[in-house]
Amino acid sequence: MFKLFKKLTKTVTLAVLAVTATGLVGMAGAEPTAAEGLEAANNALFTANNIWMMVSTFLVFIMHLGFATLESGLTRSKNTVNILFKNVMIVAIGLLTYALLGFNLMYPGDSWIMGTFFGFAGFGISSPEGAAGLIEYADGGYTYWTDFLFQGMFAATAATIVSGAVAERVKLHSFLLFSVFYVGLVYPLVGSWKWGGGWLDGMGFYDFAGSTLVHSVGGWAALVCAWMLGPRLGKYVKGTVKAIPGHSMPLATIGVFLLWLGWFGFNGGSVLSADPAATSFTLVTTCLAAAAGIVGAMIMSEIMLKKPDLSMVLNGSLAGLVGITAGADSVSVVSAIIIGVVAGVLVVASVLFVDSVLKIDDPVGAVSVHLVCGIWGTLAVGIFSPDHSLWVQFVGVLAYGAASLVSAAVIFGIIKATLGVRVSEKEEYMGLDIGEHAMEAYDGFQIFTTT
Amino acid sequence: MFKLFKKLTKTVTLAVLAVTATGLVGMAGAEPTAAEGLEAANNALFTANNIWMMVSTFLVFIMHLGFATLESGLTRSKNTVNILFKNVMIVAIGLLTYALLGFNLMYPGDSWIMGTFFGFAGFGISSPEGAAGLIEYADGGYTYWTDFLFQGMFAATAATIVSGAVAERVKLHSFLLFSVFYVGLVYPLVGSWKWGGGWLDGMGFYDFAGSTLVHSVGGWAALVCAWMLGPRLGKYVKGTVKAIPGHSMPLATIGVFLLWLGWFGFNGGSVLSADPAATSFTLVTTCLAAAAGIVGAMIMSEIMLKKPDLSMVLNGSLAGLVGITAGADSVSVVSAIIIGVVAGVLVVASVLFVDSVLKIDDPVGAVSVHLVCGIWGTLAVGIFSPDHSLWVQFVGVLAYGAASLVSAAVIFGIIKATLGVRVSEKEEYMGLDIGEHAMEAYDGFQIFTTT
Amino acid sequence: MFKLFKKLTKTVTLAVLAVTATGLVGMAGAEPTAAEGLEAANNALFTANNIWMMVSTFLVFIMHLGFATLESGLTRSKNTVNILFKNVMIVAIGLLTYALLGFNLMYPGDSWIMGTFFGFAGFGISSPEGAAGLIEYADGGYTYWTDFLFQGMFAATAATIVSGAVAERVKLHSFLLFSVFYVGLVYPLVGSWKWGGGWLDGMGFYDFAGSTLVHSVGGWAALVCAWMLGPRLGKYVKGTVKAIPGHSMPLATIGVFLLWLGWFGFNGGSVLSADPAATSFTLVTTCLAAAAGIVGAMIMSEIMLKKPDLSMVLNGSLAGLVGITAGADSVSVVSAIIIGVVAGVLVVASVLFVDSVLKIDDPVGAVSVHLVCGIWGTLAVGIFSPDHSLWVQFVGVLAYGAASLVSAAVIFGIIKATLGVRVSEKEEYMGLDIGEHAMEAYDGFQIFTTT
Repeated sequence: MFKLFKKLTKTVTLAVLAVTATGLVGMAGAEPTAAEGLEAANNALFTANNIWMMVSTFLVFIMHLGFATLESGLTRSKNTVNILFKNVMIVAIGLLTYALLGFNLMYPGDSWIMGTFFGFAGFGISSPEGAAGLIEYADGGYTYWTDFLFQGMFAATAATIVSGAVAERVKLHSFLLFSVFYVGLVYPLVGSWKWGGGWLDGMGFYDFAGSTLVHSVGGWAALVCAWMLGPRLGKYVKGTVKAIPGHSMPLATIGVFLLWLGWFGFNGGSVLSADPAATSFTLVTTCLAAAAGIVGAMIMSEIMLKKPDLSMVLNGSLAGLVGITAGADSVSVVSAIIIGVVAGVLVVASVLFVDSVLKIDDPVGAVSVHLVCGIWGTLAVGIFSPDHSLWVQFVGVLAYGAASLVSAAVIFGIIKATLGVRVSEKEEYMGLDIGEHAMEAYDGFQIFTTT
Repeated sequence: MFKLFKKLTKTVTLAVLAVTATGLVGMAGAEPTAAEGLEAANNALFTANNIWMMVSTFLVFIMHLGFATLESGLTRSKNTVNILFKNVMIVAIGLLTYALLGFNLMYPGDSWIMGTFFGFAGFGISSPEGAAGLIEYADGGYTYWTDFLFQGMFAATAATIVSGAVAERVKLHSFLLFSVFYVGLVYPLVGSWKWGGGWLDGMGFYDFAGSTLVHSVGGWAALVCAWMLGPRLGKYVKGTVKAIPGHSMPLATIGVFLLWLGWFGFNGGSVLSADPAATSFTLVTTCLAAAAGIVGAMIMSEIMLKKPDLSMVLNGSLAGLVGITAGADSVSVVSAIIIGVVAGVLVVASVLFVDSVLKIDDPVGAVSVHLVCGIWGTLAVGIFSPDHSLWVQFVGVLAYGAASLVSAAVIFGIIKATLGVRVSEKEEYMGLDIGEHAMEAYDGFQIFTTT
Repeated sequence: MFKLFKKLTKTVTLAVLAVTATGLVGMAGAEPTAAEGLEAANNALFTANNIWMMVSTFLVFIMHLGFATLESGLTRSKNTVNILFKNVMIVAIGLLTYALLGFNLMYPGDSWIMGTFFGFAGFGISSPEGAAGLIEYADGGYTYWTDFLFQGMFAATAATIVSGAVAERVKLHSFLLFSVFYVGLVYPLVGSWKWGGGWLDGMGFYDFAGSTLVHSVGGWAALVCAWMLGPRLGKYVKGTVKAIPGHSMPLATIGVFLLWLGWFGFNGGSVLSADPAATSFTLVTTCLAAAAGIVGAMIMSEIMLKKPDLSMVLNGSLAGLVGITAGADSVSVVSAIIIGVVAGVLVVASVLFVDSVLKIDDPVGAVSVHLVCGIWGTLAVGIFSPDHSLWVQFVGVLAYGAASLVSAAVIFGIIKATLGVRVSEKEEYMGLDIGEHAMEAYDGFQIFTTT
C-alpha cells in the first residue's frame, strides 16, 4: 500500500514536472495541446480549493482551544484543570471515533471507499490512493483526507458544547464516556439526515454550516445533561439565585476571539470549495452578524442588568455567529446584521431566563448561545431567504430537537444509573482539580476559598 | 436578489463542472479550445489570490486579540475587564461603521457599486452579484467582499491603538463614542488621500501597508487623548515619575506574538494579490525587521535601564513591525534589518522621553510604538528606497499629523465638554472593572491593593 | 536593485493584466495559444503552492508562542518573565543567524544565489529578482524568500526545546549565547547531512519533517545542558524527588494547542508544495497520532500515577506529534495511530525515568517529548514503512545523537567555564524575574513563597 502511495506521489510529481517542463519549453519545443493546458488549470484550481479547506480545518481545530479557554475563564479556578483536561480529551475522542465510525455513518455515500465494515477497517487499510479519484472527489473541492479531517474537527465541537454546561460538577470519566457515544454515534447519525443526503435534505431543510446540526445538537444535550446533573452547590439557596463569577475574564475573552477566528473556517469552509464569491460573501455575513450580536448584547445588558457586562457581550458575539451559521451563504448583508442583533438580544434574555426561571445551572451559557441561537438561526433562514420555507426549517428544528433530547437523555441516564454522573459534595467543594486530578491549576497563587 | 445569488452560484458551479468535465473527457471527446484553458487558468489564479487575501484578513482580525491581551497585560488587574470590553466593542464598531460608511468614504472609486447614498444603503441591497465583475474587480486580486472585510479589519486597528494610551482612566461610553467617529469618519477620510487615490497619492507619497495611514493616524490620536485626559492618579507625584507595572506579562507576550502573526496578513495582504515574489519578499523584510527591533530594544534597554526589560523587548518587536510597514515591499533585506534596529532603539528612547520629559501618561507605550515608529518607517522609505522622495514622505507625515491631531482634539474635546472623558477619582482607585462594569477580572484570586 | 524589483513587479503585473485581458477578449479577439494557457496554469499552481508554504510558515511561527506559554505554564511564577524573555529572543536570534549564515550552511546547493561569502552578504544585496528563477526554484513549490522564512522558523525551534529543560536556573546571557551557536551553526550543519543532500541522505535515511533533525537535535542539547546545569534547588533533597508544579495550567494548555496548530505547518509544509493528496494525508496522520498520544498518555498516567494527569496528557499530544513527524507522509493511518499511542505511553514512562532514575531535572519534560519520541518516531519509519530500513534509521539516530551531544557539551562547557551558566542560589530562590530582569510577571497578585 505504501508503495502505491509512493508510486502515486511519484506519478504526480512527474506529471507536475512534465507539465512545468512542457510549459517552459512550450515555445521552443513541441507545442502543448489545449487539453493539457486545461488539465493543468483544473489541477491548479483543485490545489487552491484544497488549500482553502485545509486552512478552514486549522481554524475549526483552534475553536477547541477557544472553547477550552472560554469555559475555564467563565468558571472557578478550582475546576480549571478539569475543564482543560476534558477539552483536550474531547479533541482526541472526536477525531478517533470519527475515524472509527463517525465519518462513515455521517456520509454513507462514501462507503464505497470504506467498504461495508466500520470505517476504521476501511480507513486503516486505505492510503492516499484509496481516495484516488482525488480531483473527481467532492467536485474538485478537496481530497478525501481533507474531507475527513474537516468533518472530524466539526464532530468534536458538539461534545465540547456540552462540556461547558456540565462544568464544575460532572464526573470526568462519565462525561468522557458520554462524549464517546454522543460524538461517535448520535452526531453523525442525525447529521446524515441533512448533510448525508437524508430525509431532511430531501424535504428542502437548509442548514449551511450547522446552526442546528452542530450547535443545537450540542445545545440540546447541554440542556438535558445540565438538568439531569442538577445545579452546582450554592447556586440556588433558599429561593435565591446566586451568581458564580468566572475566575479569568482574559481567558474567556481569548476564547471568544479564537472562536470567532475559528468561525471563518467553520462557515467559510462549509462552502466546500474556495469559490471566491461564495466564500468571501459568507465571511462578510459571518463577521457582521458577530459584530451586530455584540451590539445587541451590549444594549440588552445595559437595559436588563444596568451595566455593560463583559460576559454578556462575549456571549453576544458567539450568539451572532451561531445565528448566522445556518444561512451565512444565503441571506443578504442587512439580514445578517438583523440576525446578529436579534441573536445578541436573545442570548442575554435566554441566559437570564434559564438561570432564574428554569433554574437550570449552565455555568457558561451554552444552552443560550448554542441551542437558543441555533434555533433562531435555523428559522431565520426561512424568514430571510426566499428560497427556503420557514415551515420546513421548523420541522428540521423539531426533528433534531427530539432526536438529540432523547439520545442525550438515554445515554446520560444510563451512565447516571450505572457509574453515576456527579462528583461527591466534598469533592465539589474542594474543586474537581484536587478531587479528580490531584493537582492545582495555579500553583503558588493565593486563591480565596469561594463556594 | 437572493435568487440572483443562487443563479450566479449555480452558473459558476455549472461552469466549473463543465470545465472539469471538459478537462476529463478532453482527450476522448471534443477538444477544448486554448481560450477555455486560459480562462480556467485565470480563474484558478483568481481563486488563489482571493484565498491569500482572506487568510490575510483572518490574520489582521487576530491582531485585535493581540491588542486586547497586550493592553490588559501591561495594565493593572483592576482595569482588565474594562480593557477587554473596549477591545471587543472596537471590532464591532469598526466593522459596522466601515459597512455603514467607511468603506465608501475611503475608496470613493467604488461608489458605482454603492450608489450615491451612504454605503449601508447600497451595501445592504447588494449581494454577491453586486460585485459581479469579480475577476475584473481589483485586477483579479480578490472579490469585492474580501476587499471590504480586509479593509474593515484594518480600520478597527486605528481606534485600538488609542485604547491603550487612554487605559485605566477613560470613561467607557466616551471612548466608544470617540471610536465611532474616529474610525467611522477620520480614518477613512484621511486614508483616501493615499489609498483612495487622493492628493498625496498623486504627489508620490508612499505608505505600503500603513505606517502612517494606520499606525500614525492611531498614534496621533493616542497622543492627543492621553494628554487631554491627564495622567493616572499616582503616576506623577511631587515631581517623581512612578512606574505602574502591568499585571500579567504572559498576557502581554501573547499579545505581541499574535500581533506579529497578524502582521503577516497586515503586510502580506497589502500586496493585494498572492503574487509569490512580492508577498514572500514582504514577509521576509517584515520578520527580519521585527527580529532586529527586538535586538535593538534589548541593547538599548540594557544600556538605559541596566537590565533586559521584557516590556521593552516586546515593544521592540512591535516597533520593528510598525517601522517596516511603510516600505516592506520596497526596501532591501539589509535595509529592513537597519530599519528594525533603529525602531527598536527609538521605541525605548521614546518611551522614556514621553514618560519622563513630556510627562504624558501612556500606559502601554502606544505613542512610542505606533506614532514614533510609524513616522520613522514612513521617512525610512524615502531614505532606503531610491524610488521615493524623503521630502514627499515628510510632507505626508506632516499632513497626516495635522489632520489626525486636529480631528482627534476636536472630537475628544467635544466629548470632554459634554459627557466628560474621565472617570471619578473614587472609581479610578477602585478600578474601572468595578466602577464601570460591576465585575472583577479574576474573581477568587487575592490581589494586592495597588495605587 | 530596487529599480529592478519595481521593474520585475511591473513586468509581472503587466503579464498578469495581459493574460487576464487575453482571457477576457479571447473569444472576441486574437485566439490565445495553448502554450499561453499552460503557462498561466503553471503560474496559478505556483501561486497556490507558495500560499500553502507561507501559511505553513505562519503556523511554525506560532509554535514559538506555543513553546513560550507551555514552558512558562509548567514552571513557577517567579521565573515567568525570564522564560518569556528567552522565547522572544530566540525567535530573533533564530531568524537573524539563519539570515547571516544558517540558510547557506544548511542548503549549500543554494550558494549560487548567496555567493561564496557568508549568507548575509549575499542575502543583503539580493532582492526579489535575486531569486529570479522563481517558478523554477524548488520545482515551483515556493519562492526563494518563502524557503528562507519557512526554514528559518524551523531553525529557531531547536533552541526553544533546550530552553524548557534549563528553565528556572540558567543565566540569561549564557543561554542566549549558547542559542546563537547552536541554532546558527550546529543545527544547520547537521541538518545538511539529510536535508541539504548530505551523506545520510545518500544512505537512504528518512526524516520527513524533523523528528530527528529538529526535535532530537534540540532534545540532545536539552539533555546535556540540563545535566551540566544540575537540578533546581529543592528538587532532589536527601534522596527524595520533589515535584515542582507549574504555575498556570491554562498557559500550558494554550501552549499545547498552539503547538499542535503549528504542527499543521511543520508537517504539512514539509511536503514542500501544496500537493493535495500528500498534504492532506500528512495532516490526517499528524492529527490522529496526536489524538492517539493523548489517549496513550492518559491510560499510562492512570496506571502509573493513579490519576488522569493534565500535564502528562498535554505532553502525550506533543509526544504523538513528535513521533509522527519523521514519517507523517509515509506510514498508513493505522500505523500513525499506533505510533501515537506508543509515543504517549513512552513519554509518561520517560518523564518518570528521567526525573526519578536519571535524576536529571527537566522542568517541562523536553527530553522525554523531543528526544525520546523523536528517536521513536525516526525508528518507527523503519518499522512501519516498507521503503525504509530500520538499520539506516538507527544509524541516523546515532549520528545525530553523537554530533548533537558533543556539540552541545562543547559549547555549553566553554560558556560554563568562562561566563558561567547558573544563577546564584540567592537569585534562584528569589526567582530569575527579579534577579535577571528586576520585574515581576504578575504584579499585584499575591503569590505564595514556594521553594
